[in-house]
Amino acid sequence: MMYVVITGASSGIGYESALAFAKRGKNLILVARRKQRLEDLKSTIAEINPKIDVVVLPADLSDTKQAHDLYERTKKYDLETWINNAGFGDFSPVAEQDLSKVENMLLLNNVAMTILSTLFVRDYSSKEGTQLINVSSDAGYTIVDNFVTYCATKFYVSAFTEGVASELQGKGENMKAKVLAPAVTETEFSYRAMGRGISDFPHSRTPEEVAQFMLDLYDSDKVIGIVDETNQFKLKDSFYPYIKKV
Amino acid sequence: MMYVVITGASSGIGYESALAFAKRGKNLILVARRKQRLEDLKSTIAEINPKIDVVVLPADLSDTKQAHDLYERTKKYDLETWINNAGFGDFSPVAEQDLSKVENMLLLNNVAMTILSTLFVRDYSSKEGTQLINVSSDAGYTIVDNFVTYCATKFYVSAFTEGVASELQGKGENMKAKVLAPAVTETEFSYRAMGRGISDFPHSRTPEEVAQFMLDLYDSDKVIGIVDETNQFKLKDSFYPYIKKV
Repeated sequence: MMYVVITGASSGIGYESALAFAKRGKNLILVARRKQRLEDLKSTIAEINPKIDVVVLPADLSDTKQAHDLYERTKKYDLETWINNAGFGDFSPVAEQDLSKVENMLLLNNVAMTILSTLFVRDYSSKEGTQLINVSSDAGYTIVDNFVTYCATKFYVSAFTEGVASELQGKGENMKAKVLAPAVTETEFSYRAMGRGISDFPHSRTPEEVAQFMLDLYDSDKVIGIVDETNQFKLKDSFYPYIKKV
Repeated sequence: MMYVVITGASSGIGYESALAFAKRGKNLILVARRKQRLEDLKSTIAEINPKIDVVVLPADLSDTKQAHDLYERTKKYDLETWINNAGFGDFSPVAEQDLSKVENMLLLNNVAMTILSTLFVRDYSSKEGTQLINVSSDAGYTIVDNFVTYCATKFYVSAFTEGVASELQGKGENMKAKVLAPAVTETEFSYRAMGRGISDFPHSRTPEEVAQFMLDLYDSDKVIGIVDETNQFKLKDSFYPYIKKV
């Protein structure tokens, strides 16, 4: 019995991706801080498909120790796919940003993502059919004014994950690593990043749409799934240059 | 009396940059873990130019609290330029990397760099003649095999610093933000990243050469100073796309 792990599953893209994988009959390990939301999602999934197993593992991944502990708690399950979706943004000029929030953002978006990716690759890279999917952003390829530090965290996610994809391929491993790069999405993200919704944005996608993009990327052989500047979803090869130098 | 702050000044590019700025008659605040090395550098500088003031502030910037404390300790000085040079690499396949080392690398290369940049920009961005120079790497623009996580930290530094440069310019601030992106350099870096020297590398630069590149970047109006794939130093405009979207 194999599992798909989704972090940040209590709302938004993570929540809808859990429902989408449940409709595919995938057993799920759901991770987020808000335990009750995960339990509610588990109940919703039981109504959709009572045959699949859903494991709820509450964790605050901005705490590095909890990131390590989470991986330990998944060790009794056989994993197929690990989706690092947990993350948040901070919309602010650099000079005015709240450093306590920024530090937590780096610990979650980059440190926890790196720890969990590394441990999953270490244990599963040789296994056929395994996938690591890290949720970056179009802001992991383009810097956005007044959103600079968040963009830097997503440049990290994109470069790291593209690098893992190339490294796995170069070593002939079976695991695939992929980057999902959504753009503006109608989730709680904007409330945490900006303190408001995005009803005034000219383009946005629903989390249900982005969950479908997640499945499209999961089903493809491409490394990147990105919502581009025309608001269209595209599957692409690695973007950043990669060299075998040293 | 104004000061140039250099982190990671105990060896390599930071050490040679301190000597180069001393020869220009700049007062210096030197930061690194190894206090005795900084004191020795201070003595060396006193022989070159006894008129300049050199302040030694020992700190381990991979400790977030010490990064904040360092900035507090600089508050009694009038600062002209802040150079975030402290950083280290880890040469390893992702699956085999030492997570304790990797976590410290992120805390130093990204978290401390972000904290110190933010506080300096907050206090000094309107002041004429001020500069923020962050040391990234050619690996902040190209991913290198078996060096993926380090490269991701440097993609962060490049994107963050280019973003700060654009944001400052867009707001009409006087401070300039710049990225120095050296390639392989004959410093202690390789010993910490790979456990060995680089005498077998086809191309490398001495830290004295890179300190001169630092001065060239400092003197220029360009945002990036990079040692490119032909091992030549080039001054360039911002590289990553930047949009005013939200």
